[in-house]
Amino acid sequence: VKRKSLEGSPCAIARALDTIGDWWTLLILRDAFEGIARFNEFQKSLAIPKNILSVRLKALVEREIFAVTPASDGSSYQEYVLTDLGKDLFHVMVALRQWGERNLFDEGEVPNATLVDRARGRPVAALQLLADNGKALELDDTLVAYSK
Amino acid sequence: VKRKSLEGSPCAIARALDTIGDWWTLLILRDAFEGIARFNEFQKSLAIPKNILSVRLKALVEREIFAVTPASDGSSYQEYVLTDLGKDLFHVMVALRQWGERNLFDEGEVPNATLVDRARGRPVAALQLLADNGKALELDDTLVAYSK
Repeated sequence: VKRKSLEGSPCAIARALDTIGDWWTLLILRDAFEGIARFNEFQKSLAIPKNILSVRLKALVEREIFAVTPASDGSSYQEYVLTDLGKDLFHVMVALRQWGERNLFDEGEVPNATLVDRARGRPVAALQLLADNGKALELDDTLVAYSK
Repeated sequence: VKRKSLEGSPCAIARALDTIGDWWTLLILRDAFEGIARFNEFQKSLAIPKNILSVRLKALVEREIFAVTPASDGSSYQEYVLTDLGKDLFHVMVALRQWGERNLFDEGEVPNATLVDRARGRPVAALQLLADNGKALELDDTLVAYSK
């Protein structure tokens, strides 16, 4: 099914999804945040068909989420590295990870990886949403206010 | 392309994406967080083919993200309302919204909606990731630590 582009949508979530809200793209980004950078590494990690991976990587470069750089080890490979725009998706990845951790593992079952504070090796706390006066906000404390 | 299910993946992000990481599903959830609850409302908002909407809603109910309830106005319509598991996706939605707001609008262009602190009507602050000692963490302050 051909999708309508949401690039021009006035909704910030729709625009975000238009840019990265695709099944494979989100998985590619997950891998990128865990340090994967080369075509064959993505391919192996995701068991993704090469043509699909190629199209997705090209789109991520066009959208300036990834930049293409020479391999960090001096070999002839290209690497796909997160730009500042890409790195700014960090909280999206953390939110997905924390929701999964809280809800999608049985008792006694442990995820294969934990996001830790690099300096201390301790797991990070849950993301927090605060009001502009510093008060913690839950869903019911918020409202989507539409422009007039 | 048939996708491999990631339901049994040891990665929390992969499991989260397996549950909600689908283009239409993420848009349906966006609508649900903005108060949309009925089949025809989703259909109108998203211009989504009815058969696709039907399959996605059914999956969201099976996965206990949505519960089906009688219409809140006493009419014969059914409503799809977020369960506690669904509501727990709040930070995923906020992270997508804030990334879109920060990066995908031109100067002078304004999103159609703002997430505000209900009590005060003021826009919320950016999501924060903290260490367990309360220190603010940026991407480079963190590390994905794999279990041995």
